[in-house]
Amino acid sequence: MTSSPATTPEPPYFAVIFVSVRNGADDAGYAAMAARMEELAAAQPGYLGLDSVRGDDGLGITVSYWRTEADIAHWRAHAEHREAQLQGRRDWYRQYELRVCRVERAHGMQPAPGA
Amino acid sequence: MTSSPATTPEPPYFAVIFVSVRNGADDAGYAAMAARMEELAAAQPGYLGLDSVRGDDGLGITVSYWRTEADIAHWRAHAEHREAQLQGRRDWYRQYELRVCRVERAHGMQPAPGA
Repeated sequence: MTSSPATTPEPPYFAVIFVSVRNGADDAGYAAMAARMEELAAAQPGYLGLDSVRGDDGLGITVSYWRTEADIAHWRAHAEHREAQLQGRRDWYRQYELRVCRVERAHGMQPAPGA
Repeated sequence: MTSSPATTPEPPYFAVIFVSVRNGADDAGYAAMAARMEELAAAQPGYLGLDSVRGDDGLGITVSYWRTEADIAHWRAHAEHREAQLQGRRDWYRQYELRVCRVERAHGMQPAPGA
């Protein structure tokens, strides 16, 4: 598992924003697949990191970061990932929205030393 | 409160991805300010919607959507918002990362009728 918030290089790079609503079914199967997909994504070319949160109401946001749009296309077409996408639409999600974007600028605040 | 996942127009448009870690202090004050900022953001020019989730571990992701980068700059400079940003850095966040990006493409799945 990667640490979150993700540490990313200087922009520009790309992000996939995946906002989803679970249907409430098969929590164990879903959790196992989500963990496997995070592991598999992290092994792909151009992967820069991932931030993911799901609330108690079933709404989730996962943002993955990539060096290029071609890296995103490559990950999207990965056979095991395609299988998971299909199962997600059929068994786990009530609704989702996926956005591919180019990160133009970024800034942040790091934890205070010793915090 | 807006409905989530947000409904957005055809790309291109812009998104602000805000990934944060709460410090665990002052939940009530933070929740009140977060609600006020969502309300205020929704009243700004160019606002298109917002998706926000916080997990039990204190990690949160808020994505707001905007018509142009100028709309984002305008919201960022809003006096009451600036006050909230300052208080966030001082009192509520341990760490955060903010990314401004241009949404290039989007697709999704809507709930089945009657679901």
